Formats: sequence, structure tokens, C-alpha cells
Amino acid sequence: VARTAFPKATHAQTRAHNAALVLRALYDLGPISRADIARLTGLTRTSVGELVSDLERDGLAIDAGRGPSTGGKQPTLVALNADARTIIAVDLSERTFTAALANLRGELTTRRQRDLDGRDGDDAVALVHELIDDVRREATSPILGIGVGTPGIVDQEGTVRWAVGLDWQDLPLATILEERHGLPTVVANDSRAAAFATYLFDGEDRPHNLIAIKVGRGVGAGLILRDQLFGGDGDGAGEIGHVVVDPDGIECHCGRFGCLETVASTPAILRDAAAAGSQATTIDDLARASADGDDRVLPVVRAAGRAIGSAIANLTGTLDVRQISILGTVTALGDPLFDAIRDEARRRALGPLAREVRILDGGRGEDVVLLGSCALLLTRELGLTVHR
Amino acid sequence: VARTAFPKATHAQTRAHNAALVLRALYDLGPISRADIARLTGLTRTSVGELVSDLERDGLAIDAGRGPSTGGKQPTLVALNADARTIIAVDLSERTFTAALANLRGELTTRRQRDLDGRDGDDAVALVHELIDDVRREATSPILGIGVGTPGIVDQEGTVRWAVGLDWQDLPLATILEERHGLPTVVANDSRAAAFATYLFDGEDRPHNLIAIKVGRGVGAGLILRDQLFGGDGDGAGEIGHVVVDPDGIECHCGRFGCLETVASTPAILRDAAAAGSQATTIDDLARASADGDDRVLPVVRAAGRAIGSAIANLTGTLDVRQISILGTVTALGDPLFDAIRDEARRRALGPLAREVRILDGGRGEDVVLLGSCALLLTRELGLTVHR
Repeated sequence: VARTAFPKATHAQTRAHNAALVLRALYDLGPISRADIARLTGLTRTSVGELVSDLERDGLAIDAGRGPSTGGKQPTLVALNADARTIIAVDLSERTFTAALANLRGELTTRRQRDLDGRDGDDAVALVHELIDDVRREATSPILGIGVGTPGIVDQEGTVRWAVGLDWQDLPLATILEERHGLPTVVANDSRAAAFATYLFDGEDRPHNLIAIKVGRGVGAGLILRDQLFGGDGDGAGEIGHVVVDPDGIECHCGRFGCLETVASTPAILRDAAAAGSQATTIDDLARASADGDDRVLPVVRAAGRAIGSAIANLTGTLDVRQISILGTVTALGDPLFDAIRDEARRRALGPLAREVRILDGGRGEDVVLLGSCALLLTRELGLTVHR
Repeated sequence: VARTAFPKATHAQTRAHNAALVLRALYDLGPISRADIARLTGLTRTSVGELVSDLERDGLAIDAGRGPSTGGKQPTLVALNADARTIIAVDLSERTFTAALANLRGELTTRRQRDLDGRDGDDAVALVHELIDDVRREATSPILGIGVGTPGIVDQEGTVRWAVGLDWQDLPLATILEERHGLPTVVANDSRAAAFATYLFDGEDRPHNLIAIKVGRGVGAGLILRDQLFGGDGDGAGEIGHVVVDPDGIECHCGRFGCLETVASTPAILRDAAAAGSQATTIDDLARASADGDDRVLPVVRAAGRAIGSAIANLTGTLDVRQISILGTVTALGDPLFDAIRDEARRRALGPLAREVRILDGGRGEDVVLLGSCALLLTRELGLTVHR
């Protein structure tokens, strides 16, 4: 009833907006007839015809045979050509950087890896360039852009404000990659990308709120609150890895002592296991030893689990979010880890809240940061929401 | 461009909706002319005239003289009559329950208090009834409803799922009060009501995110995220008082050991001060002793400050919310407390995040729960957003 002001749109803006509507209809609902697109978008048949032709010329739409007749002749169907564009997805969250190619459905193909080998600063940036060059050579369709998941606090412009382990401070990574590679680039925190992917691929009954905690080389959380990523005032939400859990603890890369990362990251667990006499040099070694009931290893795994569980109790008390997924290499440690996590989360949070929390094993999630980065790029560049 | 479906509204619904629009215009912008209301709402002059007449008949709108001429004769102005309705606001967060009357601007008048004197369960409910009867007798205009702020987890229907200190479990307080007093009732968590009031009264440059931590008899937080109260999946968000901070600590009312409330609530501080040899029986006594540099008291105050600061570091790492207000009786402890809070919050959170956090002394906030409860009722019953 109240009068609403619509700012006047230029013809070009209107056309771009309508083209995006049609693309989204193809993406979400295709194969679909032009008549159904017109009905669902409210555009005229003529407009839809023109816009679909444009998309066909760009290779984004393709003919998909004929649909069932609704009385008259069978309508021609149009579908999205998911392979019409390639996305470069990059995951910088572990010691081995990974890049992959993805199509418009987030289906990952060509994958390349490069070991960080202790590099940081500009050398680590150089490695990112090399990886992007590596996969780009393999692309067989025009490249839409680059999506990157990186540890650290990342602002809206894709500047890494601080990535402790990579020694990046105020590094305008998105701009650097855009200039060097000439492609639109989205850079996001790795845990946030992982949370976005977890949310998107959770299917129809996805919850409105969820938290993904990534535990590997670092520890970080991504928050989906009311169906949106929540970044806080300075894009630092979820940086739980650098909350001090033991003031008398070990020095952290960030300069503080006893951060969660000094207790529960995979390097910390391996270090503590070694101190307890274990020969394990990888998390998989440790997982085997722990499964075999190695008494030197089990207490270390349980201590890490308790630290993560305690962090989850804090999240529960703060946010009362009921779905919490643990992702990353640490999940290889299996039941001994998860039992400790769940016990401690329950022990440290208020009964009625703790009882409702589901702490899920999200697996290694080798692809989850790649998928999330890819999805963030697709949303920004084409307004599409990846789903399966 | 896309076609949007509006569900058909009945005539009565349309009229109620339009009446609410006019009321909001009066509330937010009055004194105002009928012509300006028509211009701003998009309603016809005739509709506005009729709706204003209705509001005048109900006593909600009053004549407010004449405004400046814009060419023709001076227009008559209409204003909201803030005293046309009374709200009963109730604060159950301390050992002394408080009820007050408020007008439609949230201006509090008649105030009555009753000591809990150790009562809980049904006896505590009886005390709430008595308090409401006490203030209701003083009302000089029709009563719009009751707004209650209570400790504990409170669901959307106003059922107290668990209020540890009052021994209330699954108590349908809103329904109980509605039936006994025959008035619409909103029941909300006290810290959440306090956060809502803090947000509303923060003025023009209010932040989109803020956290109010209430520390008194209990400890709880209210979260405003993206300009809305955030309750989480089960309305338990902000229940930080029952997160375990010291597993070897003292038993809490909730049955766990070492919850934040066992260290940082005002009863806990008084208990620890007594154990250290202090004679103080109230927080004000303790504040005086602490200001005088009493060596028995200062370490206790600082320990409580550190516990609160540590909880804030968790909030910062989780949410990166930069405005955090501490409210409640504990604030009487002044600088020794706040210095310890700020030091510990800074020490335990990541530098770039911690540097931006403003930890504000929100004062005793004797009215803040009353104001927040009143504002929640006004929003629900009349769609009005209290501001000053």
C-alpha cells in the first residue's frame, strides 16, 4: 500500500538484469521451455526469446530436445551448458596449495598441487601464480574468474589483513591476482568458503544456521547465520584458532601464547605426539597408531579433542547453533578424536543447549574450500547459487 | 521486472495495515500534517483523514496546533499522544524484581519492587503477579500489555525453558501472565531485552552489530547481529554465563562446575571477597573497598574482570563484533574491574581484532531491561520502534 520508489534503470541495466534472471532460471530449473521461463520470470515471450538467443550465442545455453506437450506441439527445451565456462578454484589452507578447474556446476576436474616447503610472504604469492598458470593451461572453455580460499582475515575487497602462517599482512591478494592473470577474482577466508560449500550442499533441509570448523594446518570457523555468511564488523568472525585457551601454553605464530591452534591444529598434535614418543610424522600415521590403541598417541588425540570440544561449548553458549561440522585433515583421527570433542562440548555447555548440538564429521574435505571458493565466485559474477 | 505475487488482503486487513502506517508516521515524524502523512505513506488524503479520526477517537492521536504554511493556509498538525496507553514493564533479572509503568515513548514512571528473598518456582511467579497488580493500580490510561525480561532461555512463545536461579523449567510465563492479567504479554531473556534497548537508544550512528553483556546476579549476553536480535536455533544464544571456564571450579546452580557465573557474577564476587577476609556484603561496599585499595578485595575484582575479559575474547574470535557493553550491578566496581576486563580481552584475542573492540561501561542499567521489554512489546503490538 505504501508507495515505493524504484530508481530508474537504464536500458542496458534492465537487459543485464533480465539476462541474469533467464540464466538463473536455466541454472536452477533447466532443461526448461521458453514459455515456462517467461511464466516464471514475468518477462514477455519475445524478451525471453532474445535473451536465450544471446545466451546460446555465448555458449551458455544449449538446445535440450523437446519437452512433453501441454496440449499443442512439444516445446523445445533449453538448458544451461555447464561446461561453457571454467572457474579456477584455489585452496591455500594447507602446506600443499591446490588449484583445480571447475565448471559452472562446481564439478572439479584438473587438479594441480604445489608444496609450500616453508615458503611464505612473496614467495608464497609466487607459488599461487604458478599454480594458476598450471591449471589455466588445461582449460577448454573461457575462464570466468578465480576463486581463492586462504587462511587468515580477509576483507570484502579480497585483501588478506593477516594470515599468520603465511606471514601475509595487508596483502591485496584479489587485486594482485586480477592484475597478473586478467581475471575477476574472489578471495575469501578458507573456513568461510568451507562453511559456504557445506551450507550449499546440505540439500533441501539445510538449516538456517551452521558452523563449519576446519582443523588442519590451522583452526578456523565459518559461520552461516540466518542463511548468510557472517563476517562480523571486520571480517574476522570465526577466527577461533587464535583465541587463547591456555595462557601458560606454547608460543603461537601470532605472537601470543596458548592459542587454540597451538593445541589442536595438526602440526600441534604431531608435535605433542612426538614429545610423547610417537614416531608418526603424518596425521595418517597417527590415526593408525591411535586406532591400534597406542598409549603414547591416544592421550594426545584426546587432549586435542577436548580443546576443540571446549571451543564448541563456547560457540554453543554464544550462538546456540545446532549443526557444527568438523572438516579437515584432523578428522582422519576418527572416533578417539570425535568422542573427546563431543564429551567436552557436552560437559562445558548448558544441558538444554548441548543436548541439541550435532557435531558432524565432515571428513577431510579436500574439495570443500575449492568448492566454496568456486561458489563464491559464481555468486558474485553470475548471481548463481550452486546446488546439487 | 520479475512478477511478484501479492496475496490478496481483505478489506479489514488493509485498513489495519494502513492504520499502522499512519500510527508509525505519527510516532516517528509527528507532529505532522495530514497532507504530509498522505505524501509519505502513499495513502489518499481521504483515507488518511479517516484513519487519523479513528486514532483521535482512540485517544492515540491529538491535535498539535498549526504548522508553517507552504503557500496556502497553515495546516493543522497531528501528534501521537504518548500517554494514551500504558505498558507494564517487568525486570526479573535480580534478587529484587522490579515493575514499572511506561508510556508509548518508553518513558518510565511508577516503579515498584519486591524482594525475591530466596523464593523460586511458583512462589517467584506469585511475586510477579503481585508486582503487576501493584503497578497496574497506578495506571491512568488503558494498558497495552506486559513486557517481561527474565533470566534464562526463553523461546518465541515466551516459555522459559530454563532459568537456573529461579528453578523455572518449561514455564509458559507469557501464557500464565496473559491468562491471569488478561493482557498481551511478551517475555524475553533479560540480556536480550537489554541488548535491544542498548541498540535502540544508541542513536543515529548505532552499529549494525553489538553485544550487551549483563553481569549481576547472573551473567548473560544479548546479541544484535545485522541490526536484529539473534537467538540461535533454540533461543539460547548469549547464554555465556553457563559456559564452563574452570572445570575444577565451584558447583553452579545448573549442576556443572566452574561456569562463568560461578566466577564473575556479583554473588560469586562477594563470596570470593568474603573468603579473602572482606566484610563487604554488597557490591557497593566492595566498590568502596576496592577504590580504597583494599588488598583483600582488589585481586578478587581483577579475577572476575579477567574471566569476563576472557569471555569477551571468545566473542571477538567468534563474531568480530566491535561494540561490547557491560551492564549491570557489577559495573559499580569501576576501573579496577574494567582495566582487568580490557587487558584480558586484548591479551586473549588476535591483535587486529582485539584492537578494534570497544568495551563500554554501560552502567548499572537499572532501567535497561525494563526499557527493552517495553520496546519488544511495542514492536509486537503496534509495530513501533522506540527511539529517542
